Amino acid sequence: MLITYLDYFGTAIFAASGVLVAGQRRMDPFGALVLATCTAIGGGTIRDMALGDTPVFWVHQVAYLWIILLASFATIVALWRFNQTRWWLLPVADAIGMATFMAIGAIKAQHLDVPLSVCILMGILTACGGGMLRDVLANRVPLVLRQEIYATACLAGGLVWVLAVNVAAPVWVSTLACVLTALLIRLVAIRHHLSLPKLMYRR
Amino acid sequence: MLITYLDYFGTAIFAASGVLVAGQRRMDPFGALVLATCTAIGGGTIRDMALGDTPVFWVHQVAYLWIILLASFATIVALWRFNQTRWWLLPVADAIGMATFMAIGAIKAQHLDVPLSVCILMGILTACGGGMLRDVLANRVPLVLRQEIYATACLAGGLVWVLAVNVAAPVWVSTLACVLTALLIRLVAIRHHLSLPKLMYRR
Amino acid sequence: MLITYLDYFGTAIFAASGVLVAGQRRMDPFGALVLATCTAIGGGTIRDMALGDTPVFWVHQVAYLWIILLASFATIVALWRFNQTRWWLLPVADAIGMATFMAIGAIKAQHLDVPLSVCILMGILTACGGGMLRDVLANRVPLVLRQEIYATACLAGGLVWVLAVNVAAPVWVSTLACVLTALLIRLVAIRHHLSLPKLMYRR
Repeated sequence: MLITYLDYFGTAIFAASGVLVAGQRRMDPFGALVLATCTAIGGGTIRDMALGDTPVFWVHQVAYLWIILLASFATIVALWRFNQTRWWLLPVADAIGMATFMAIGAIKAQHLDVPLSVCILMGILTACGGGMLRDVLANRVPLVLRQEIYATACLAGGLVWVLAVNVAAPVWVSTLACVLTALLIRLVAIRHHLSLPKLMYRR
Repeated sequence: MLITYLDYFGTAIFAASGVLVAGQRRMDPFGALVLATCTAIGGGTIRDMALGDTPVFWVHQVAYLWIILLASFATIVALWRFNQTRWWLLPVADAIGMATFMAIGAIKAQHLDVPLSVCILMGILTACGGGMLRDVLANRVPLVLRQEIYATACLAGGLVWVLAVNVAAPVWVSTLACVLTALLIRLVAIRHHLSLPKLMYRR
Repeated sequence: MLITYLDYFGTAIFAASGVLVAGQRRMDPFGALVLATCTAIGGGTIRDMALGDTPVFWVHQVAYLWIILLASFATIVALWRFNQTRWWLLPVADAIGMATFMAIGAIKAQHLDVPLSVCILMGILTACGGGMLRDVLANRVPLVLRQEIYATACLAGGLVWVLAVNVAAPVWVSTLACVLTALLIRLVAIRHHLSLPKLMYRR
């Protein structure tokens, strides 16, 4: 199914983003592999633990681990081989991964018969959890929390998904609507450097 | 029951403290909401995962999520509306939340037939876990670990609770004893800026 | 059994390393105790949660908590009593703990009928997870990711273990082979300050 391939694609992309951050922090290759693994499966792992759907998904689907291994290796080679000017593709690929993970998290929670508001939360956790873990391990405030429209795009995708589920749309329609909404908002935000206004303290 | 209302109150207060930290770090409103959620339900979530009592508590009690949403929104408005001189109330409210969460964590663990020493640990985890997660996400050493009598107050509450359980006191007595002990020690520590002596290295 | 004693020994050593980091960050004794607990049982706790083997191991084996308490107390006293020149023993003891935890994590996962590649991952998680948690709470990039041959030594131990399991070696042989391989590589790395080359960005 398309969603499975998108899931694998998202896993590979998140692994690559882990390796990139590891490179910025001058880690060694195995450190990079550990960081890539945390980024790629961190969100889904916390989701499965919270839902009690254990062993978590990658324990019996070893494909994820091999994808992370391959993607990390490819990124390490690419880091050393290609000029940094090519890296503008990464945020776009990351947006695709994020939008897919949002839908996957929500659908998985729905299968376990969970209230729809919790499904949205599980989607956001799946989409943002890995990146948050990556940034915490790299000792910086998670990007998700800080500057760009990221969690917001997830939330919008989740709301559209709930709407589609409520009007009893077929699964592929609600999934597609969720993915496209989140993706579109995120891409527009990247392209135009949009962010929400910061919180203000009264002086 | 009183303990349920105190639990909701504690959740709201911890959410507010998450928003305050988000404001200090200049996050956007959705980042603040994510941080508020991690602070308010982080400790209890880890507790439930460790005890294997899954899905974790908020999956089927959506009230918690709405409380977090409301409390965060109210705090964002208050941040922008009120002068910072009013914020001295927050540590006091946080102490109430901490003391309540300590009792709730211990009681929940006891229901699952866990040794009393582990009950204390689960109480401390519930009371301190959310704040630790908040500070880690905001990229600073958790306050709990650093300076004030916080974990110590939890521990004292826990020991009093074990004592009360051992003499077969009614549930409301042991709960109240735990909450009041932890709260009192914490309030005294706040008022008089008490802290334990730091660890020393021999030179 | 020997492995149980090594496990207790590893727990005590990791607790001590938590207290040492707490001392560097000028935490108070209870903060140190919390950090020691996270370091000593953090990796195994995440492993048990991911495997769905809950309640996690220390809930019904309270011995671990007492060992942490004793080891932390002893380390606090030692910090204040002994000159820092004696501390070179700690990395060696930490290597023993790491190698033991690697084997224990892998064996535990194997008992739950998990693919061998996931067993290796669970071993690495058990051996490195606690130290990563410690460093994140102390607000620094985990040492494991950064500089020395640590995860690499775990991985080597894991590969030797898989080899031994595949040729149907007795449990004590595969365990010993895993522990000795990981320990040897780590000790050599400590002695000669070896590390893998850092990731490079093309300029």
